[in-house]
Parts: sequence; structure tokens; C-alpha cells
Amino acid sequence: MTNVSIIGIGQTEVKEMWETSIRHLAWYAIEAAMDDAHTTKIDAIYVGNMLAGALSHQNHLGALVADFAGLRGTEAVTVEAADASGGAALRQAVLAVESGLVETALAIGVEKMTDQTGSPVEAAVATGLDADYEAMQGLTLAGAGALLMRRYMYENNLQVADFAGFSVNAHANGADNPLAMYRNRLRAEKFALAPLVADPVSLFDAAPMGDGAAAVIVTRHERALDMVPQPIRIAGSALATDSIGLHDRRNVTWLKAAELSAHKAMAKAGVTPEQIDLFELHDSFTIMAALSLEAAGFAARGQGWQLARDGEIGRNGRIPISTFGGLKARGNPLGATGMYQIVEVARQLRGEAGANQVENAKIGMAQNLGATGATAVTHVLRAAE
Amino acid sequence: MTNVSIIGIGQTEVKEMWETSIRHLAWYAIEAAMDDAHTTKIDAIYVGNMLAGALSHQNHLGALVADFAGLRGTEAVTVEAADASGGAALRQAVLAVESGLVETALAIGVEKMTDQTGSPVEAAVATGLDADYEAMQGLTLAGAGALLMRRYMYENNLQVADFAGFSVNAHANGADNPLAMYRNRLRAEKFALAPLVADPVSLFDAAPMGDGAAAVIVTRHERALDMVPQPIRIAGSALATDSIGLHDRRNVTWLKAAELSAHKAMAKAGVTPEQIDLFELHDSFTIMAALSLEAAGFAARGQGWQLARDGEIGRNGRIPISTFGGLKARGNPLGATGMYQIVEVARQLRGEAGANQVENAKIGMAQNLGATGATAVTHVLRAAE
Repeated sequence: MTNVSIIGIGQTEVKEMWETSIRHLAWYAIEAAMDDAHTTKIDAIYVGNMLAGALSHQNHLGALVADFAGLRGTEAVTVEAADASGGAALRQAVLAVESGLVETALAIGVEKMTDQTGSPVEAAVATGLDADYEAMQGLTLAGAGALLMRRYMYENNLQVADFAGFSVNAHANGADNPLAMYRNRLRAEKFALAPLVADPVSLFDAAPMGDGAAAVIVTRHERALDMVPQPIRIAGSALATDSIGLHDRRNVTWLKAAELSAHKAMAKAGVTPEQIDLFELHDSFTIMAALSLEAAGFAARGQGWQLARDGEIGRNGRIPISTFGGLKARGNPLGATGMYQIVEVARQLRGEAGANQVENAKIGMAQNLGATGATAVTHVLRAAE
Repeated sequence: MTNVSIIGIGQTEVKEMWETSIRHLAWYAIEAAMDDAHTTKIDAIYVGNMLAGALSHQNHLGALVADFAGLRGTEAVTVEAADASGGAALRQAVLAVESGLVETALAIGVEKMTDQTGSPVEAAVATGLDADYEAMQGLTLAGAGALLMRRYMYENNLQVADFAGFSVNAHANGADNPLAMYRNRLRAEKFALAPLVADPVSLFDAAPMGDGAAAVIVTRHERALDMVPQPIRIAGSALATDSIGLHDRRNVTWLKAAELSAHKAMAKAGVTPEQIDLFELHDSFTIMAALSLEAAGFAARGQGWQLARDGEIGRNGRIPISTFGGLKARGNPLGATGMYQIVEVARQLRGEAGANQVENAKIGMAQNLGATGATAVTHVLRAAE
């Protein structure tokens, strides 16, 4: 296990917030995390963000966020790994605290998608793909998801309808989450009727992008025990990469970085998939949910979709996923998404998930992916003993 | 002292490289560092970069660079803090190795400025300023430099010509560096005749932006001693921030973050300014060189420019700066600049600086600034005993 524990969590709603600047968005999550931890003493800040430079004309978020949070002077940098930026920010916070050079670190994911609209946004999102060999040819993120889904359907002889369970589950859970972007329930028979985004990816396969920020404060475990009643231990933490372009992968339908980071994080935590009570995975597309379940060891290759079909991913299923709606219903604020996952797992392990509570949750895992899985960050969290 | 040492260094020329993609540029520096360290075993990669998303349409550099360097799978993320991104990347590598969770880390700074030209580049560079309160009003980085220089001249009753010594020194040193962007010597009497960029900042005050990449490989000191003949100890390491906008600072002509990070890094290293044999500072503008010397403790407030006037910054002076040409003559590839500084200090401490050698250099400092100093990263390096 790592020697790092979470002492505070905070998050905003995910939605379109045209009137809110990125510095305010970040502050709302930080303020909530500080309130929760009952501390404002932070020694380092790691800001997960992908697109502020492109969409808000604002780089240099470390200094900006630190100052706006009342922490002028504090060590602060931006960490970027496409839509895995949030998880990557937490990874840096873990390393910083483990180094002994930083006592208390704050990891925040923040993304402001609505300063622009239309094709500039789509082009900005595509900077997570291989610029020279994918985006340059016109491939978008949804297009890349479509290639993966089509290939997986071919290999496993599936229909679009076979992916319905992922979205139905996400929307069922999102309906109970007041912070979710979409709170409507979805019936399986409606799933296959959705308009296409990039054939075969439909509106109901693809997660909606929105504005949002989520933050956690971490410190050494022994210190955390003195500070808060329920510190959440970061038992395992790992970040791995794969080729950025799909064309360079030996098996496009196997997420190697997801497998590697999940394996390392679970080994560090000393747990197996069977011991994990819930799994916040990166369901940017339904196909990514299926592939993540397989790469993390919850299903054999080509069988991840069956967990959705068989109802195993629900709150009372074998491995609950997207318990607050996931990317699909809670919404996907790219660089913030990984931190939402962490905040949600922490809420589950504290027993503070309300209507979304997975009963008796003691060990939870979060996996944040960048683009088509070229970066994968996995964290295993444990409830206080 | 930290327990981290440099075992390999690598760098490319700084110039316009229209035909070179950012992945190749990164690889050239990594290959050189791997050759120098005699190892290809890297456990984590920190990529300092500011503008690949804007200028090369490529984010997600961690995965891209890892894969292209033959390190597919390796933990890798981008670290951004405007033109302090390079120093910030090394800071993450130091924390990672100190954590004990990463054995060998590679920090690289890489910037590709020449995929576009003109106002898109200027606008991209301005994302290091406060987007809402500075860049939105039309302020550019050179404009911000001009505001600082004008105020400093007013406070200290100076003329433009009083800054000449910084550029003359930088160009004298750059002339002996085959990797420098500009190798012409500059006479003081020509300095005041240069065309203005943003009054009073002239072409000879402002550092030229170019393409470049520089990398170092670090590991635990005891391990480094077994691996290479001359490991360079990272004695001190610190990163601090200030308000991103000039208007929010109590004293615009005092670089608070530079002072804070220099103070922390020197304290960690157990050294005072008097013990430092050379100082690679962030001379993006001559005014920044003057302010950095003051903030780091080499001159009293308002007197940094006198070190240039009195010839104290030359190779044989009291505190040699910009020993390979600095940002002014070696060139300023924004997110790579901080890593060039580290590579240059390491070459000096190894006694491998050739014509640029500062005699008997044992302790060197590098300070990398973001924009107008909203981020400052300071590293103190020591030669092997």
C-alpha cells in the first residue's frame, strides 16, 4: 500500500456553465475539499487539465489556481495526459507526498468546455489522438471510438444493442446523482434508436462533455488518521502508457496500458479483482467500458459486454460500475473526469453515497483513460479500518 | 540535499527546425541522454511542454514521447507551467525518485515553435499570462516585459543602455556554443540601436524563440555513483508561484516566486549565494535577468543591473550567468528552456563545458521562470565529491 490517504474531497456539478470562468470552477471544488478536510494548509497543487490553453486561452493554471484559491506562492503545476489528466494529477500528488518533501497535496481536475463551441472544440479534443497520423487525417475522438467498437463487434459477433446495458446502468445511477449532467433514465429499447455520432457510436454510447471540477486533498496516512474520522487510503496507484495511435497497437481491442496500470495498482494494494467492491471506469464510449472491464481483469477478452447484459454492473451486481452515472450520465469534463472518479469512490467507501451507495463497499478502484487508452491511470482506494 | 542525482544529459541545437516533428525533436534529446547515461531503462517520464496543443495540434505528449523513445508502456505525463515547464518537469522527476516508487526518471523539455508563424504563435505564448485580465486586453509577453522594464527604469533612474551588459555577455557566451541559436557577438554600442519589440524592450533585450529539446536522467544518488563516473547531485529543488497577473502583485519589480524558490532550494542544498559558482537564470528579457539576480540574493533590490555593468556576470566574474548564451543567445524554446539550463549547469560541474567552462565550478544554480515570474523553479546542483 502507499502511505497516502485522502482527507478531503470536493466537486461541482457537471453541466454547461457559460457564466463561470475556469478559475472560479477550480475554486468551487477546492473550497469544498478544504471544507471537507477542515484545512487550508496545502503544500503543493497538481492541476489536471487538457484544454484550457485551447478553449480558454489560459495555460499556466498552476499559478492561476493557487493564487485564486488563496494559496499564492504554493508549488503548483498543470499535469496533462488528455482525458486522463485528472488521474495523472492525483498520481503526482501521491508521489509528492510519498517523497516526504511535500506534506499535504491537493489534486484537482478542472475542465471548461463551454468557452467555445463546435469544431474548435472537436479539434481541441482530437489533440489527445496522434496529431500526425490520426487527427491530421480527420479522425475525431468519436471516430476513434467507432473504429474500436466496430472491430470489437466484428470479433465477437455483436450488435449495437449488446452495448445497451452500459448506458442503461449509467443513466439509472446518474438519475440519483444531483450533480450529474443527465438525470434521465434510459430504457434499453430506446438505446438502439439513438442518432449516430460516428457509426456505430450513437448519442447513447458517447459520454457528453461538460464543465466541471473535482478535487481531493492527500497527506501521509498516520497524519490523516489524526485529522479526519474517515481517511481513505490510496492503497495502489499506477500510470502506464500505450502507443498514442490505434494503428501502432498489436491488438486494438486490448487496452494494454489499462491492463498494466490496473495490474500494478492492484499488486501494490495487495488485492485481486474479486476483492474490489466497485469500479469507476472510463466509459467515454460504451466500448471503452467493455474493454476496461476486460483489461482490469473483471472479464475474459471479448466478454466484458456480457457483464452489462447480465446485470452484473449494477449497484447490487458482481462489479458495480459508474455508480454516480459514470462519464455517460454524470458527464465527462475531460481533464476533470479522473478526479470525479476518485471523489465518487471515496464517497462510496465513506458510506456517504446516499441513494447511490454500494452496500458494504470497502475497496474501490478508479481507472482514468486518455483518448483511446494511450494513458491509463489506476487507483485502488480502501476504507479506513 | 535531495537524494537524487543526474546520470545522463542530452540536448539538441536550438533553431528553427521546420522539417522536424515534435516527436523526433524529443527523441533526439532522449537518445543523447540515454547514450550519456549508458542506460535505456527508464521508469517514468516527465515532459515539460507549453504549446504543442496549440502549435502542433498535439496534446498527450507523455504517451507519444514514451512510445517514440522505445519506452511504450512507461509511466509518462506532460507537466506545464508556461516557460517554466522544463524546470517543473525536473521537479516532478525529483519527487518521483525521492518517493521510492520510481527508480529512474527522465525529465525532458521540448518545444516546437515553428509549426506555425505570426499571430497564432504570439497568442499561444500569451496563454502564459492572465487570459482574462491581461491577454484579453491585448497584452503580449513582450508587452508585459516592457511594463516591467519601464517601471524598473523609473524606480532606479536608468536608461535602456544600462541593460546592454546582459545581452553582450549572453552573446559572448553563445558565440562559443555550437548549439546556440545566435552565435554573433554583440557590441554594447549597438545595443541601444536595436529595433523595438515593445518599447522599451528591443530585439536585443528579448530572447528569440526557437525549437529545441533537452533531457536529463535521474536516479537515487547511491545508485548513480555505481552507474556513472560523475553523477551530478540535485542538492536543492523548489517550485513556487506568484499571482499570474502583474496587476495583482504588491511590488511588480520584485519576483516573489523567484525569491521563494531560490531561498528554499538553497536552504535544502545548505548553500548561500556566495558559494554558487554559476547561475543559469531566465533571461527571457534583460529586465528578467536583473530581477532574477536580485530575487535570488546576488544583488540588492534595484541593483541587479549593476552586476552586468561591472562585468560581474562574465565567465570570470563574481557570478557567471548565461554561460552557454542563456535564453538570449542560445535561444528560448519555451517549455524546453528550463531543461537546457539544467544540462548546461551539469556540463559546467562535470568540467565538460569546453570554451564556455567556468573554472573550478562545483556548485551551480538554475532558475526557470514562467511568463512574468508567476512560476519559478530553482535547482541547485553539485559536482561529485
